[in-house]
Amino acid sequence: MKVYLDNAATTPVASEVFEAMVPYLKNEFGNPSSTHSFGRQAKGTIETSRRKIASLINAKPSEIIFTSGGTEADNMAFTVAINQLGVKRVITSEIEHHAVIHTAENICEDKNVEFQLVKLLPNGHVDLDHLQELLEQGDKKTLVSLMHGNNEIGNLLPLKKVSELCRQNGAYFHSDTVQTMAHYKFDMQELDIDFITGAAHKFHGPKGVGFLYIKNEIKGLPFIHGGSQERGLRGGTENLYGIVGLAKAMEIAYEDLEEHQNHVQGLKSHMIAELKKNIEDIHFHGDITPENSLYTVVNVCIPPTPKASMLLFTLDIKGVACSGGSACTSGSAKGSHVLEGIKADTSRPNVRFSFSRYTTKEEVDFAVGILKEALEKELVD
Amino acid sequence: MKVYLDNAATTPVASEVFEAMVPYLKNEFGNPSSTHSFGRQAKGTIETSRRKIASLINAKPSEIIFTSGGTEADNMAFTVAINQLGVKRVITSEIEHHAVIHTAENICEDKNVEFQLVKLLPNGHVDLDHLQELLEQGDKKTLVSLMHGNNEIGNLLPLKKVSELCRQNGAYFHSDTVQTMAHYKFDMQELDIDFITGAAHKFHGPKGVGFLYIKNEIKGLPFIHGGSQERGLRGGTENLYGIVGLAKAMEIAYEDLEEHQNHVQGLKSHMIAELKKNIEDIHFHGDITPENSLYTVVNVCIPPTPKASMLLFTLDIKGVACSGGSACTSGSAKGSHVLEGIKADTSRPNVRFSFSRYTTKEEVDFAVGILKEALEKELVD
Repeated sequence: MKVYLDNAATTPVASEVFEAMVPYLKNEFGNPSSTHSFGRQAKGTIETSRRKIASLINAKPSEIIFTSGGTEADNMAFTVAINQLGVKRVITSEIEHHAVIHTAENICEDKNVEFQLVKLLPNGHVDLDHLQELLEQGDKKTLVSLMHGNNEIGNLLPLKKVSELCRQNGAYFHSDTVQTMAHYKFDMQELDIDFITGAAHKFHGPKGVGFLYIKNEIKGLPFIHGGSQERGLRGGTENLYGIVGLAKAMEIAYEDLEEHQNHVQGLKSHMIAELKKNIEDIHFHGDITPENSLYTVVNVCIPPTPKASMLLFTLDIKGVACSGGSACTSGSAKGSHVLEGIKADTSRPNVRFSFSRYTTKEEVDFAVGILKEALEKELVD
Repeated sequence: MKVYLDNAATTPVASEVFEAMVPYLKNEFGNPSSTHSFGRQAKGTIETSRRKIASLINAKPSEIIFTSGGTEADNMAFTVAINQLGVKRVITSEIEHHAVIHTAENICEDKNVEFQLVKLLPNGHVDLDHLQELLEQGDKKTLVSLMHGNNEIGNLLPLKKVSELCRQNGAYFHSDTVQTMAHYKFDMQELDIDFITGAAHKFHGPKGVGFLYIKNEIKGLPFIHGGSQERGLRGGTENLYGIVGLAKAMEIAYEDLEEHQNHVQGLKSHMIAELKKNIEDIHFHGDITPENSLYTVVNVCIPPTPKASMLLFTLDIKGVACSGGSACTSGSAKGSHVLEGIKADTSRPNVRFSFSRYTTKEEVDFAVGILKEALEKELVD
């Protein structure tokens, strides 16, 4: 048996998504900027996709800017906020994805923008009192950037509450919603956020495509200079098949969202219960209460074991693909900045399991069994 | 009959390329940054693709940085040159693609870098004497950015000669090779250029993927901040299927390059002869001699006609898809900056026809017939 429990890193493309993309890889290949029939057809496809995505999150089509993925979308949000909106202070947190924290650090240094970190509570949530305190200080135009669902520990940010805090203090609000887009409902009229992001490959769409939602009133200089594509914000021939795949993946995700949420939350609760029952002295990083946590992610704090460094390798060999944290930092020697940020006990090994709608109870049981066996047999002296 | 003669805007995906991509859209979906077997397999695929592309242009794999396309690659080249190499002067030309000219203008203004334009000769070629003159002036660290094959008029730059001029004067050299990559042979050891670019969809690969070649010794701050992908130059999960498609498209292009070159140059010469024979007072923009011109592009200067503004529309209705110039500017009301740059007679209408290896003589004859008919019947008073 081979079990994939790393869906927060990437997900398989849904077969319906693949089928939707095929015509655009085979026959309908026009450049959306061309004015002839091939081009107009491609343009129509892009705009249909844009309208579909906009309607799924109750936004206007003109508020959706297609990008090469979530990371580019986060980068673009900062560029627009600082270059166009005149933001002079950024407030973010230590446990943001590198697409946000590295972007914020770099652009703040480059553009002489103040950089502030909001405190975190012991359970990994953002300290909203401290956020309010920071927002009430000074009168610099401010961008708050806080992710919706943390990709490593799963903590969920109360989006509406943060958006209200930002509005009350005249700040712009960007939320990296890469882990929650197409996993939770978004109503942009009700939420009132300036920037959110999505990456198709996190919800069974293709890699290499995503989007930035920019609240209507905001316009910007290009992030990528070139042609006048994407309302002049991003030059370059559009990734036609990718955009079609993105729209299809979002559409099918929202068709039966509640059913998937219940299924996956059921798997997560089951795994937590089984891990507690089968492995002594096991803990979980972050807040695991269903209302405050991504239903797709659980981060397990494993009891100390002599061969801890072999843990992920052993699980992989035995057929369980999972991770220590963000895939984007797996290659580096550094530990998780998120676990450090929440002051977790990083002397103990940890494993992130993440689920998708295709994950089954049998796969979860298999993974728990393999982990138990590894801790009892392979990872001891 | 419906004829596609706008291959400089984009090309259909080759069936071999589509077939190569399918497994990565269906089954092999890992995140290349994940350390488990799914991730390692994806990483291996990316590195195999990188090695393949590098070997096709006699470069090192570490010199190939995957991007979302040619435009992003051009943007990245400027960012690296200015932020990392300390370039304080950019020399470019008026007839560059917007991915270069807009990027150069913006980054020069933003970073307080001198911006200079080299003169053009009446036939649209870069005035190399003037380039030398500029290079010999002052002692600012300089980047020369001149495209290899002009996308509108087809003029080819003598790459080796410009590269030598740059080296003699200690300047860096970037060439937008989007129109020539996989259409001409590149030997990076012999050419000695710092940056060149490619976009898969210009040579029967997928849209949304391309690459920047950066000469070995050069390292840079990220263009897109995030994870440590692409040697830290570009955060974001890699476009796995796109990269596979890019490598496959390049591979098949170089397999029988000469055959395609001869076939397409034959079509172009045939079209020029037929147009001259069939339509009075016809001219061609740029240099059309085979050794100095893209074999894939011909830009026709049409005799004055009362309904000139209906020309492209009429051709499209009658089944011939072609363009007035760059697709990237088709949507805008402005005329071609390239034709203005070479001081062409823009009071006369123009049409760019561009060919691919799939174009046939019958299609060319059909297009000439339609153009002749339109000029004789539809576009008169």
